[in-house]
Formats: sequence, structure tokens, C-alpha cells
Amino acid sequence: NYSSKGYTSSQIFVPYSVFKGKAALSLSPRLPTFTKLASGAVVIDRRGTMMMTFVPALGERKYDWEKKQRFALSATEVGSLISMGSTGSCEFFHDPAMLSSNAGQVRKSLSIKPHADSSGYFMSLSVVNNILKTKEYLSVPVTTAEFAVMKTACSFALPHIMGWDRLTQDQSGGMHGQ
Amino acid sequence: NYSSKGYTSSQIFVPYSVFKGKAALSLSPRLPTFTKLASGAVVIDRRGTMMMTFVPALGERKYDWEKKQRFALSATEVGSLISMGSTGSCEFFHDPAMLSSNAGQVRKSLSIKPHADSSGYFMSLSVVNNILKTKEYLSVPVTTAEFAVMKTACSFALPHIMGWDRLTQDQSGGMHGQ
Amino acid sequence: NYSSKGYTSSQIFVPYSVFKGKAALSLSPRLPTFTKLASGAVVIDRRGTMMMTFVPALGERKYDWEKKQRFALSATEVGSLISMGSTGSCEFFHDPAMLSSNAGQVRKSLSIKPHADSSGYFMSLSVVNNILKTKEYLSVPVTTAEFAVMKTACSFALPHIMGWDRLTQDQSGGMHGQ
Amino acid sequence: NYSSKGYTSSQIFVPYSVFKGKAALSLSPRLPTFTKLASGAVVIDRRGTMMMTFVPALGERKYDWEKKQRFALSATEVGSLISMGSTGSCEFFHDPAMLSSNAGQVRKSLSIKPHADSSGYFMSLSVVNNILKTKEYLSVPVTTAEFAVMKTACSFALPHIMGWDRLTQDQSGGMHGQ
Repeated sequence: NYSSKGYTSSQIFVPYSVFKGKAALSLSPRLPTFTKLASGAVVIDRRGTMMMTFVPALGERKYDWEKKQRFALSATEVGSLISMGSTGSCEFFHDPAMLSSNAGQVRKSLSIKPHADSSGYFMSLSVVNNILKTKEYLSVPVTTAEFAVMKTACSFALPHIMGWDRLTQDQSGGMHGQ
Repeated sequence: NYSSKGYTSSQIFVPYSVFKGKAALSLSPRLPTFTKLASGAVVIDRRGTMMMTFVPALGERKYDWEKKQRFALSATEVGSLISMGSTGSCEFFHDPAMLSSNAGQVRKSLSIKPHADSSGYFMSLSVVNNILKTKEYLSVPVTTAEFAVMKTACSFALPHIMGWDRLTQDQSGGMHGQ
Repeated sequence: NYSSKGYTSSQIFVPYSVFKGKAALSLSPRLPTFTKLASGAVVIDRRGTMMMTFVPALGERKYDWEKKQRFALSATEVGSLISMGSTGSCEFFHDPAMLSSNAGQVRKSLSIKPHADSSGYFMSLSVVNNILKTKEYLSVPVTTAEFAVMKTACSFALPHIMGWDRLTQDQSGGMHGQ
Repeated sequence: NYSSKGYTSSQIFVPYSVFKGKAALSLSPRLPTFTKLASGAVVIDRRGTMMMTFVPALGERKYDWEKKQRFALSATEVGSLISMGSTGSCEFFHDPAMLSSNAGQVRKSLSIKPHADSSGYFMSLSVVNNILKTKEYLSVPVTTAEFAVMKTACSFALPHIMGWDRLTQDQSGGMHGQ
């Protein structure tokens, strides 16, 4: 399948990462995929997300990528993040096995809570897996400046995640000769 | 007509939709069309809009697309939406038959009103049709996060609706060799 | 000269206009022009501006385009406009004959002042021409929603006026094979 | 090496500059560079920055470019700048010889401090060089409007500095035929 090979080979990795004492946190947009119908119209196939990756520290400036945990923010969850004021907080719950027979067995929750002195936020991911009987908790302190980068970058990425950037890619669209 | 066929085939459908108990609401930009004059200059032909589509619910997670109602926000109405504070509200009135012999027979009004507890908004469309003697009212509760997505996406889309994104599409424009 | 012909023919006219009782006001970005040096590097030639055009009314929904007056906002003046709060005001002074022998003979001033009830702004242009012994004054009331469109559109256009959108036009820039 | 020649020749110079009595200040984004792996995936190579250049005045409207001093803001430092309120301030410290044998010998610090009357900011660069026994200090007053241009332009440039604008450059990415 040429299209999917083409997709794979054009993947670009440009995460925004913050490395802290106990864990690192990395944000990277995942673009939506599209299907071209026989009519020529293009419809969205799989929605884009903002992927958050938490990685526990192994030691000084070393991180254990084998133990990374992921949480994929939807467009609406990105909307929560970019509309947070300096004292706001938010929490999201995901069930990766939703609609399957394992529904309810794994519970992921992401929380963003401000520091008491407004100097930044704690971004924390908790993963409770009832099948493997495991419970992970990873938390990363994020400064106001780092959070501003995340908000600006997420605001930029949001229309791309939603596929709205496609609106202007066909440069001849809507042009009529006289 | 090749141009208009070309336009149709390049249409992209990437609505932002929220599905609630009594109705669903979907936002999708409609780009402007342009005309190229004999001089080579390009002028805007039909202005773009932000199309809002309301669909009543038929039952759980089922919506009656046959009964959808539309309201096309102009650039200035999009300006009202994106400049709304958390306690603001706005209302727009459209007459789809304006300037025709049926003027005044159909009256559409869209209102955006905040929840009393600031937890979001009600977006409601009322369509009164004096010819068909019908009166439709569709209302969708929108959370703060969903409204933030709409504001960010509408801010992104506004220059596209206005045609200002065309300003940079001719990449050789304004370039002089030495 | 092929380049300048090419430039003229690719011009796009997409003004944002508000038509009011005594005058109309129209905003339209003017992109910068560039020069390619022998080294291949590209430098900015003439800076871009946000062109404001005021046109007096002749009668109901008719405007006298022969009597239009223009004021070209610089990047920094656009910065003033987009950073205005709901009660702020600003005023700019231009001398179109600056640095010529007619310096000081024509004085243009643009002012933006909020309505007393915060429901919008007055945007006014005064042109005093000591050579022709003329004095023109054109003023347009602008609603909060219209001003929000102007701010969003000007924020979008500002990097284009500054030429910063050129940063990413050469898509192979900065790419190294392994 | 063709790629790097290509990079040099496509460089574009579009600084935003403010010229004041004692010094000038110029902002110009430096884009990241990328490496294409054998797998076809593209990874970021060298991160982008927002380059700030301070130049001391020689006399009226003359600046001594031989004595320019530079400070390259990282994405997170750009985040600090764009999230500054009208009364906030910030200071960054760089050691250009960090991780080399000269570490600690040159100390650069950039500070942004608001005027007492909130009419703008002082942006100041101090460079202390213990090897050359020199100490430079350059300070430029920046108006609120100029700072608004810098914030808007930096917000626009931030995703480009981070490489996130690459996400949509391959226009066929994620497209599947039916």
C-alpha cells in the first residue's frame, strides 16, 4: 500500500520535552488521517490527538524509555488545557480498552494542577491496570514559561489535529476564471 | 465547467461536532470563492462563512440528519463569538430570503448564552417559517473546553473565511532578482 | 521586467470593510517585497503595511471612492491596535512628504477612541493639506465584533507584513540527508 | 555538501528592529535543522531559537555593528516572553562556553523589566567576559506597541522554532485512497 508507506516515511518527530528530576514529559501532535472518496471529496478518517508521553527517571539526566506511559489528548481536552487560567486545574479519564471486553480494566487519568504559589503546574499521569495488577504514577513539575510554550504550541496544533489546516492546501480551490 | 468541478472534488469535510442528549452541533468553515480578472488580479467572489449545523436527537446517540438546520456565521459574527468573555452572550438574526419576495417570511436566530454557573454555554437556533407554519428550536449545551476549541478553531479559520490566507499563496509574489 | 509584472498580476484584493452612515472603512494588508542577492540570500526590500481606506458616503449605501483617503499602518502601529484594551485609545501621525521639500505640508492623523459605553470604537482619519488648503475628516463607528475581526485579522497578517511567513516557504530548508 | 549549500542560499533576513538613542535591538528567528534517517523518518537536529541582537549607537541614527552582542532565546525562554503580563519581568542567563573548558568564563544575562509607569519595557543585555576582561551592557527601551509586535511575532514564530510547522508540509501525508 503506497499511501500508508508514504505516510510512514514522512513522519516527523518534533516533541516538546521537559526533563525534570523524577520524570520527563514530552508533547507531540499526531495528525489525523483522511480518506478520499470516489466522488473526490475528502473525509476525516482517524482524528488527530496531542500525545503526552511521561518517562520515569533512572538517575541524573537518564530516563527509562521502556517504562514510558502515554495519554492522547483529544481536541476538546486540548481546548481545556489552552483555556486554563493561572489558578485553574483539570483532570481527564481515559479507558484504552473502551468498547472491548476489557473495558474498565485499565484506567488512565491525567491531571493538571497549579502550584500553590502560582509558579507553575504539576502534570501527572496515573495508570491503574487491574489485569496486570499494576499502578503507575508519574508527575512532572512544569514552570509557567514551559506551560506557556505548551499552550501556544497546542493552540497552533489544534486546527491541525482537527484537520482544519487542510482547508487551504488545495491552492486552486474556489478559483474561477472570468 | 472545469473550475467548479475542480472545486467540488477538492472539498474537505472536517467538522468539529459536539453530540449531546437533545441535539448535536457541528461547526465547519466554508471558504470564499474568487474570480480571476482579465488583468490577472484576483477578487473575492462569494464571502466565506462558518457554517453551524444543528441536528435533533432521535434517540440515544442517534441524530435525525433529515431535520438539520443551518446558520452561516459571517466574518463579523465570528468576531462576536471569539471576543465573548465568560459571562457574555450574543444573538444573531438572519433572513434567508432577504431581498427576495419572501423577505420576512423565514426568521432564523442564533443565540449563545452562558450557563448561570459559568460552566459553559447554551448555543440555540430558532427557525420560524411563516410559509410552512413551522417553528423549530434546537439547543445544545457546550462546555467551557468545547467552547475554547470553537474559539481557537474560529480564530484560526477567520482569516481563511476572509480570504486573507491567499495573501501568501503565490510564493514568488513580490520577489525581485538583483 | 518580468518580476514586477508577475507581482502585479498576482495581487489579491480581499479587504475587510465596514459600511456605515457617513463613511466606510476598509482594511487590506500590503505585503513586503524582497530582493534576492547574488549570494542567494533574500532580504526585505519594502516593508509591508496594513492599508486603511476611508471613503465618505454619497447617500444611502453609496460611497464616493474618488474622495477616499488612505493611511498605511506600520508593523509597530498594528502592534498598538492589537494590544488595545476595551477602554484604550491610540493616535498615529504620518507625513506623506517626510524627507522631501514638502515635509510638514500634509499632516495625516488616525485616531481610535472607545465609545463611552464600551460598545465599540470610533476610527477617524484627519488629513490637513496646507498646499491645497484642504482639511478632510472621516470617522467610522466600529462595533466590538467588527473590532475583534480587525484585531484577529491584523494579528494573523502581522507576521506576513513583517515577512516572517517567508521563513517556512522553502520546504527543503535546513534538511540534511544522513 | 549540497544540502548545506542549499540551506545557506535560501536564508531569509527579516529582522524586527527597534532603533533607539543608545542602542538598537533586532529580533530574528533561527529555524531548526532536521536530519532524514535511513528509514525515511525525519528528526530534529539543532533546535531553533529567537536571536536577539543588540547594537550600540555610534551617533545619531548610526550603530556600530562591529560591537553587536547576541542572545539566542530557547523555545522555553520565548514562552516566558510571550506570557509576560504588563507588570512582569524576567531574566535569563547563558554561558556560551558551557560544557567546554572555558565554562563559567563568559556570562551573558538578558533582562526584561517594565517601566515604572507601565508605558513599556527595558530590554537589556549584559556580557561579562573574564578571559578578555571586558564587561558590556546594552539597554533598549521598548514601547508597549513594539512589545506587542514582539509577542505576536514570537507567538507566530514559536511553532516554527520548535519545528511543529513541519507537521503539515507534506501535503499527501495521511491520505488514503478508497
